[in-house]
Amino acid sequence: MGFAESMLLAYPGPLPHVDRIALTECIEACMESAQIATACAEACLSEPDLPELAECIRASLDCSDVAGTTAKVLSRHPGYDANLRRALLAACRAASALCAEQCERFAEAHRHCRVCAEACRRTEAACERARCSAGLCDAQRAGLTRRPRLPATCPAASHATTNGAVLPSMSTGGM
Amino acid sequence: MGFAESMLLAYPGPLPHVDRIALTECIEACMESAQIATACAEACLSEPDLPELAECIRASLDCSDVAGTTAKVLSRHPGYDANLRRALLAACRAASALCAEQCERFAEAHRHCRVCAEACRRTEAACERARCSAGLCDAQRAGLTRRPRLPATCPAASHATTNGAVLPSMSTGGM
Amino acid sequence: MGFAESMLLAYPGPLPHVDRIALTECIEACMESAQIATACAEACLSEPDLPELAECIRASLDCSDVAGTTAKVLSRHPGYDANLRRALLAACRAASALCAEQCERFAEAHRHCRVCAEACRRTEAACERARCSAGLCDAQRAGLTRRPRLPATCPAASHATTNGAVLPSMSTGGM
Amino acid sequence: MGFAESMLLAYPGPLPHVDRIALTECIEACMESAQIATACAEACLSEPDLPELAECIRASLDCSDVAGTTAKVLSRHPGYDANLRRALLAACRAASALCAEQCERFAEAHRHCRVCAEACRRTEAACERARCSAGLCDAQRAGLTRRPRLPATCPAASHATTNGAVLPSMSTGGM
Repeated sequence: MGFAESMLLAYPGPLPHVDRIALTECIEACMESAQIATACAEACLSEPDLPELAECIRASLDCSDVAGTTAKVLSRHPGYDANLRRALLAACRAASALCAEQCERFAEAHRHCRVCAEACRRTEAACERARCSAGLCDAQRAGLTRRPRLPATCPAASHATTNGAVLPSMSTGGM
Repeated sequence: MGFAESMLLAYPGPLPHVDRIALTECIEACMESAQIATACAEACLSEPDLPELAECIRASLDCSDVAGTTAKVLSRHPGYDANLRRALLAACRAASALCAEQCERFAEAHRHCRVCAEACRRTEAACERARCSAGLCDAQRAGLTRRPRLPATCPAASHATTNGAVLPSMSTGGM
Repeated sequence: MGFAESMLLAYPGPLPHVDRIALTECIEACMESAQIATACAEACLSEPDLPELAECIRASLDCSDVAGTTAKVLSRHPGYDANLRRALLAACRAASALCAEQCERFAEAHRHCRVCAEACRRTEAACERARCSAGLCDAQRAGLTRRPRLPATCPAASHATTNGAVLPSMSTGGM
Repeated sequence: MGFAESMLLAYPGPLPHVDRIALTECIEACMESAQIATACAEACLSEPDLPELAECIRASLDCSDVAGTTAKVLSRHPGYDANLRRALLAACRAASALCAEQCERFAEAHRHCRVCAEACRRTEAACERARCSAGLCDAQRAGLTRRPRLPATCPAASHATTNGAVLPSMSTGGM
């Protein structure tokens, strides 16, 4: 059992709106990519092709800061607040995606960029699962009609309690 | 001249999409409320009515973390990315509003809550101005028609440079 | 292989002064206790005996902040600088010890305090090993004479390159 | 009145060991250099001489992280703990000094480095004053004999309650 899950189980009180697995996976993914992105930016500073890596470094620094903060905020359980959690998970997903895109450009040349890209893609996915599991993803915000059939791309498909209506397409950039 | 503006003026290169005033005011407001919220949570821990202040403390801790990170990310100038900046400013606005709401409940009883609430309301407003000035706010996302009349609540009303032209719809990266 | 070690191995260039195992264990311990301490402070806020937990919450918040920052700084490899690394590892060790002491008081009553105390003790030890492995611990600062025999309590005993002198005792409050 | 001082005055309870001026000046200096150092690292990434600025960027990132955390920890008032406060102020002073040294090398060429260096020197001094005012500086740790006469370089000279002994010289690199 991961440390995040261990602490969640130790929480004194019910957490009725929380999908424990999605939440703890997201916290752990965020923490991992926060450290990996810091280390990647550092390694880039020592590369001979440093001038080409400037945008990659920026994206890594942003990702590290946002992912680290997201892990902290997700570790708190205030009375339910959709705005903050939704926006922060969207920010973290965006920061992770940007960092992954930048690092993927250099993944063949630099091993640290490959490791970072993979971690950021995991975090991007974990943030989206956490959003959906908390009822905060685009499909849910759009409003489910009778018999919603969630598109294949929506991670919530695996938590389906819906029954088949056609949903508006979920733009990947949305929150 | 504040230190944030001073550093922005020292930036080596053009920043065509940046509203310098809105950005630096937002950075400084975020930093201020990050520290004030930390201090408020601390002061609450010493109050005799601590059990009633638990939600206030949570909101202050979230606000401190999110505002501090927002100030850092806003200090960077990557190639223009709508998703991250928009989502993070939304998260910071939400965190600031929540903290202000909680602190306003105790503003009469506790001076530190009053100071914190005021700082958070300033940050909430500064985040919205920064979003609008970067073309990222809700009014703009909704799509403006000819002779845009921005709603009274939109801070961008005071920065109006439009004169009725049709604005392009905002990139799919919207929130 | 942990992610911290993975990134260290991917570093482009030699790191002659670095004990890879001690460093990566310290980074991972710091990150873990940073998140656990955040979660412990949160859980304390929901406990019925919250007023008794105020100092515990403070110590957890300090530990989370300091450990998180230590993990970031340790992920960087600037030209060798003794002052910063030594002082920061000392601060992290102190913050972890304080948090552990506070949480141990409530470990029987609250599971989250027990988990947190254990994590902080691991971080305390990891910081001391990292300091010693980098030649920054008190025994080494005191100056080794010929044939140093490191006291049993000094984690550096296992890295012995010394040859047997009696060292002054390492004060627990020292840096 | 600065916001840090405002919050300190609003603290519910006595703070007998706190030199309000030294503490609030230190908090505000730390916050300022945390943001300025972030902005300086960012600006360096856009400079044509980026490869020469790698160490400067590292030092700026370290300084930003450590100063930001120091401001947070100093905003808390736990039961008196010498180890953590002393070590953290030492770390912040070291990080600020390193960043200042690096930035001073490029101060003529890059305005953002000049602004950053000046801010870091202020923070370095503020950390030392805060250490001395809390009885944590090297001169005091060395143990005052009768009639201590603090050396001119010790910021505590202006808070003198001592009575004239000759102290061992205070090494600037000490902790």
